[in-house]
Amino acid sequence: MNQAIVFGEIPGIQEGHHFNNRREMMIGGFHRNWAAGIDGNGKEGTAAIVLSGGYEDDVDKGDIIIYTGAGGNDPNTKKQVEDQNWDNRGNAGLRVSMDKGLSVRVIRGHQHKSDYSPSTGYTYAGLFSVIDAWEEIGKSGFRICRFKLVYSGSNEARSTTESIELDYSDREKRRKAGTVVRVIRDTQLAQDIKKLYNYECQVCGTYIKTKSGRYAEGAHIRPLGKPHNGDDNPNNLLCLCPNHHVMFDRGTFAVQDDFSLIGEENGVLIIHDGHQIEESNLQYHRKSHGYQ
Amino acid sequence: MNQAIVFGEIPGIQEGHHFNNRREMMIGGFHRNWAAGIDGNGKEGTAAIVLSGGYEDDVDKGDIIIYTGAGGNDPNTKKQVEDQNWDNRGNAGLRVSMDKGLSVRVIRGHQHKSDYSPSTGYTYAGLFSVIDAWEEIGKSGFRICRFKLVYSGSNEARSTTESIELDYSDREKRRKAGTVVRVIRDTQLAQDIKKLYNYECQVCGTYIKTKSGRYAEGAHIRPLGKPHNGDDNPNNLLCLCPNHHVMFDRGTFAVQDDFSLIGEENGVLIIHDGHQIEESNLQYHRKSHGYQ
Repeated sequence: MNQAIVFGEIPGIQEGHHFNNRREMMIGGFHRNWAAGIDGNGKEGTAAIVLSGGYEDDVDKGDIIIYTGAGGNDPNTKKQVEDQNWDNRGNAGLRVSMDKGLSVRVIRGHQHKSDYSPSTGYTYAGLFSVIDAWEEIGKSGFRICRFKLVYSGSNEARSTTESIELDYSDREKRRKAGTVVRVIRDTQLAQDIKKLYNYECQVCGTYIKTKSGRYAEGAHIRPLGKPHNGDDNPNNLLCLCPNHHVMFDRGTFAVQDDFSLIGEENGVLIIHDGHQIEESNLQYHRKSHGYQ
Repeated sequence: MNQAIVFGEIPGIQEGHHFNNRREMMIGGFHRNWAAGIDGNGKEGTAAIVLSGGYEDDVDKGDIIIYTGAGGNDPNTKKQVEDQNWDNRGNAGLRVSMDKGLSVRVIRGHQHKSDYSPSTGYTYAGLFSVIDAWEEIGKSGFRICRFKLVYSGSNEARSTTESIELDYSDREKRRKAGTVVRVIRDTQLAQDIKKLYNYECQVCGTYIKTKSGRYAEGAHIRPLGKPHNGDDNPNNLLCLCPNHHVMFDRGTFAVQDDFSLIGEENGVLIIHDGHQIEESNLQYHRKSHGYQ
């Protein structure tokens, strides 16, 4: 694994791409690891995982996957024989990918038992986001590290929102109720800006500690997507804590051209050397929320 | 409108339900307003909207809708003749629905120009979440209040995640890149818990101010949905600020049975009289994140 880790889509490999064997997957850094299921580490994150029937506790619902981390299973019997732990580089990497909003390439092997597995070789299932990480006692009585992944690629027909069935006995039976869906999948540039600020919020200077490091959110000043059509460019990005991200998106405060804060925040935006913010983006945000 | 406002699904009315006229929609409080497009107010939120061709700036992509708020248009010519404003109860209500995570029933009328409109009468399009609110100068030169709504009902085939096309000229052209999707749709009980705490975080006591009031997030202690299968019950809910919600979900801190905080937070959880928290849920959360 001398090759650098690569996150996101690999040019030339589309969803559904078939690999005859693990070696073919190593080309282009798609999955650099010949034997292990997880290609990643606790510093940069995890870029790709293979579901290959190695873990008895895996669950595969197509666009929602419950994945068991690495370690502690007997390679011959595939049975769990000892506890898994979070120091394992693959497990740590999946947690980092969750915190940093990095997407993970998911590959299904023929040995993996699911309706979505290929009969031979391996199939690329697309980009997923890690939305939950926890530990529990597995079927065999040992501690396992677990992850919930949801599809977050660009195929809109496959996009996943979770609905949860709740039993309201006093109303209609089994009605579905709302839930909080928080799929954070950052652009590469948003990740770069967060790194530049060492995950410290440009408004309050604080950062969110997690078990795998620091957490912050990349906020586009002029929003991406229709109808705003903001650019994915460092000059349109801020590094914010979740609280200030909510407030900024709702116009609770705004930023003047001299970077002083107006609205419900005082003070001045913290700006690192080398981070140029485009005035027209700040103006667009102010106008959108009725400032000036 | 003596009838109380009702949010969410109305028993007996499914997605695709056809109404012959506006009067039929008033039954059961589905849309209580005979003439106005928006059924809502700045205190409780907006429960339903009708798209009926009244605004030249509306955009309808099916499961993603850009909706123009109420006010300032001439009822005869349908042209905008003056500025809209945020004091309008319908506009204020949509902003409240966004902040509180309330879903909005969306109805399309035959006068509304889109591929999804019925040829006669009105059709119920399902539950949507307001994910953005801003103001801009409309086609006619007057200020309009605008909202972005995405489908968030229980039909999984229709679930919406946004993908945004970005032009990476140095890589493949027009590749789609990730984005932050934060669709907050609370259960009724989560809304009740947030109200009980007046939107103050049970860890730090702070609240997020927005233009339409206060903002907090309802956090399930033992997560809803598979594989955790937590209950949607007040004894499994906390009112948290977004920062502490992220930290709690990631196990940065946990809560002991005596409500003292462990991990990266000190002190004791703030608990209101009348809020019973189930110990087994706290235990489940602690175990999930390796405490004790």
